[in-house]
Amino acid sequence: MMVNDLRINGARLVTRLEKLGAIGALEGGGVSRLALTADEKRGRDHLVSEMKALGLEVSIDPIGNIFGTRKGRTDGPVVMLGSHIDTVATGGLYDGALGVLAGLEVVATLNDAGIETEHTVVVAAFTNEEGARFQPDMLGSVVFAGDMSLEEALDIVSIDGKRLGDELAAIGYAGKDAGPKDIAAYFELHIEQGPVLEDEGLQIGVVRGVQGICWTEITIAGRSAHAGTTPIRLRRDAGLAAARIAAGVGDLVREIGGEMVGTVGAINLAPNLVNVVAEKAVITVDLRHPDAETLARARASLASLVSDVALKEDVEITARTLADFPPTDFAPALVDCVEQTALGLGLSTRRMFSGAGHDAQIIASLAPAAMVFVPSVNGISHNVTEFTAPADLENGANVLLQAALHKAMPTNGENA
Amino acid sequence: MMVNDLRINGARLVTRLEKLGAIGALEGGGVSRLALTADEKRGRDHLVSEMKALGLEVSIDPIGNIFGTRKGRTDGPVVMLGSHIDTVATGGLYDGALGVLAGLEVVATLNDAGIETEHTVVVAAFTNEEGARFQPDMLGSVVFAGDMSLEEALDIVSIDGKRLGDELAAIGYAGKDAGPKDIAAYFELHIEQGPVLEDEGLQIGVVRGVQGICWTEITIAGRSAHAGTTPIRLRRDAGLAAARIAAGVGDLVREIGGEMVGTVGAINLAPNLVNVVAEKAVITVDLRHPDAETLARARASLASLVSDVALKEDVEITARTLADFPPTDFAPALVDCVEQTALGLGLSTRRMFSGAGHDAQIIASLAPAAMVFVPSVNGISHNVTEFTAPADLENGANVLLQAALHKAMPTNGENA
Repeated sequence: MMVNDLRINGARLVTRLEKLGAIGALEGGGVSRLALTADEKRGRDHLVSEMKALGLEVSIDPIGNIFGTRKGRTDGPVVMLGSHIDTVATGGLYDGALGVLAGLEVVATLNDAGIETEHTVVVAAFTNEEGARFQPDMLGSVVFAGDMSLEEALDIVSIDGKRLGDELAAIGYAGKDAGPKDIAAYFELHIEQGPVLEDEGLQIGVVRGVQGICWTEITIAGRSAHAGTTPIRLRRDAGLAAARIAAGVGDLVREIGGEMVGTVGAINLAPNLVNVVAEKAVITVDLRHPDAETLARARASLASLVSDVALKEDVEITARTLADFPPTDFAPALVDCVEQTALGLGLSTRRMFSGAGHDAQIIASLAPAAMVFVPSVNGISHNVTEFTAPADLENGANVLLQAALHKAMPTNGENA
Repeated sequence: MMVNDLRINGARLVTRLEKLGAIGALEGGGVSRLALTADEKRGRDHLVSEMKALGLEVSIDPIGNIFGTRKGRTDGPVVMLGSHIDTVATGGLYDGALGVLAGLEVVATLNDAGIETEHTVVVAAFTNEEGARFQPDMLGSVVFAGDMSLEEALDIVSIDGKRLGDELAAIGYAGKDAGPKDIAAYFELHIEQGPVLEDEGLQIGVVRGVQGICWTEITIAGRSAHAGTTPIRLRRDAGLAAARIAAGVGDLVREIGGEMVGTVGAINLAPNLVNVVAEKAVITVDLRHPDAETLARARASLASLVSDVALKEDVEITARTLADFPPTDFAPALVDCVEQTALGLGLSTRRMFSGAGHDAQIIASLAPAAMVFVPSVNGISHNVTEFTAPADLENGANVLLQAALHKAMPTNGENA
């Protein structure tokens, strides 16, 4: 059989997702496997046992990342397929799990075909990607990439007051292995978590990188006043100022257009009563763009908007940056590889940026990385109704398989 | 002494306010006398005892309104000076109390001068004006004016789950008297509860009427979406729609101008998170204007704004009227009387509308009514820091005295 004709088993992949999804399953659907809880430990145990059943050599690093290694002919850099198996408190079956289990499915497919790759293939599951129990998110890959010290990470305290190091030891996943750092290519298959592929009727998202993210908290100090007895000219209305900024954010992102997104998701007024002019308002602004310069332009527009509103409504406004992640560009050669692979499989594609954070953007500082997106029904994620159709899962896993083979068997004529 | 030269005793008026203000006094300042509570009963007892000390004949009607009567030479219609002594939970010493206690001060002044008026003078304290414990507000005057049946009123349940009739009987103020319904003129002295007089450096507000009030609750149904992964064109952002409406209310009231006021005091988003496009928003809109036609125009503009935003942001919007009070115009002759009296006393005045509700607007359906406003420092009211300077209190009470004398002694040459 020609390597190019290899295909994963779609039904088996769905079964893998269902089996892992049964661990921490919520009544009525969805799953809850918060990082390092008893349910997530059972998920880890299941993953390790599946890895072993496929003949993978399992290693655990000190932050609890799990690696399943399928040795290649050479000792050179590995091809890594990874993601995570922790979830948010009310998550779905696909976010994270797909990237890990499709990695297992790739290994199973190679095993079934009796193929020995040139490079070693590693399936990785990174610790605490969601950041739902321990902050920051993407913690396992951050420590793996050396962006945070192990000691600092182990001392992080969870939302339920537990130390990460203690929780990791308690579930038996404080490993001693180093994990493979010499990586030729890292591929992560993930659901889109957005509506674009579905909306455009496309099968594969070729992820060029991850948007830069800037979160700003804006606090507006006005003056409380009676809504009936205070003439407009004597008001310092924090609520009106908040509304003007929120509406202005809507306008400025539309003006920039393209991939620019901006959201005022939270607005809190005080005293928040029908007949009192608000004394105080706190709002958040979430700005994202794949290009650092455009993102900086949006931030400048926001700052100018805030100044204008402060002047116009006679209020005092302070702004605080809550998060500031620059955009990540994936390795162009790997992005091309994903695209050519998908097109070669006859799948429809579009290049896109990820609007959410992923382990791949962390690994990108260590090695060439890229991502494959498959459609999310209604764009829904971090929700028990998260769903991706079996055919889309299968397509994505086949792109993962073939892209991995391109890199793991570079001298194979059929893949040249 | 000429009747025109009569003046109240400013220091004695302040003492009256301090004495009543000591009942239900809050630590650190302010007062709490929620209607029909033990503290308010003590306030009532104090008032009745002060009335009796001034020789007034005290009567209590079935809704607990207190009337102190000073007989005139004739049995004709009475001149009534009134307001209320209940407060909000964290109120000040002036709102309501001033109108009642200035009435007592007028009586004391007449007593001291040995003046017998032609018309009977009545000082009135109406039950539950604030509406802070029992809704609706202005309940005592509403029942007195026949706008609600006594039975219905007695069955109202308080915010702490008590039946009004039971509470009224428990404090001993379920009276059997009818109260004087044949009223030649009703005057209410009140603090402005707004900043206009202070801002313009004026001493007396000649109140022409009470603004019409329209409260609308607007509920916006959008679609929850990831703030990073959902392109602008695929959003149905309830938060953005809420902001556009709130900002639009700010614009439309400025466009109408003049006495128009409009406030979005409450904005509630769901889920109200930094990185989630809001699925739902509920906001309140408070519109007020003294003229019914202009208020109707503002409501029409709001409706059109809501339609435009619904279309533009692809959200579903429903609106519910929470309150709808038409404007009240006070009797022109009585308004003129207040103005001429104040000018005659050498005080600076402006005609204005009340932005808040008062017993006077209810009595206005029964008899000629008018109000006198004095400045509120910083426009603050319904707050423990509520304050009006002694000189302003004295000015207001002198206007009340002289306006009352104009009506109670119409054939007195000096007042003709």
